[in-house]
Amino acid sequence: MKVYDSIKYNDKGFVPVITQDYDTGKVLMMAYTKKEQLEKTLETGLAFYYSRSRDKEWLKGDTSGHYQKVVEVRIDCDMDCVLYIVRQVGAACHTGEFSCFYRKLNKNGEVEDE
Amino acid sequence: MKVYDSIKYNDKGFVPVITQDYDTGKVLMMAYTKKEQLEKTLETGLAFYYSRSRDKEWLKGDTSGHYQKVVEVRIDCDMDCVLYIVRQVGAACHTGEFSCFYRKLNKNGEVEDE
Repeated sequence: MKVYDSIKYNDKGFVPVITQDYDTGKVLMMAYTKKEQLEKTLETGLAFYYSRSRDKEWLKGDTSGHYQKVVEVRIDCDMDCVLYIVRQVGAACHTGEFSCFYRKLNKNGEVEDE
Repeated sequence: MKVYDSIKYNDKGFVPVITQDYDTGKVLMMAYTKKEQLEKTLETGLAFYYSRSRDKEWLKGDTSGHYQKVVEVRIDCDMDCVLYIVRQVGAACHTGEFSCFYRKLNKNGEVEDE
């Protein structure tokens, strides 16, 4: 079954993507893709997204060199979220941190040191 | 720094949540929360969400018994996505699968057997 057309893109054509690092298991980031960028990801083995702020296709690593080599693409039960499992080159986060989720919250909702 | 108010909830008050299993590292599901359910999650140590379809608070496991015991709550760099790292009781997916992402796509966008 070809799933591109079964995926529940929102009214702007986006579906959320979770990206996980294959080697460490860390969740790296969350972003969005359109159908075309999902196809490119599957075909090329590099993670493509669609930047909502810049309103254009986004090949992760295209400017930073921090490409994501895709090991697996998975789809969730209700077809409204995609999971890229990747080998991250360098760091996923623009801050230089490996994962965008580098801050932990304590019980009071305060950012805690690692 | 208390982050509840810095989180970028969307115009309906939602922020996406990625849920990951602590023991296996598997990404279990993606859902949404509002500020109040995030507070309850931090305070109680059980994963709360907000169901967009039912328009009400959702304590994961409340009907199925498949609670999620929260080990860590993390926030991403631009404060628009939350990560719950949990110990999953039973299965996360309503289909009975441990993770909602139980289907893998091949290069042609077809669902592949595991």
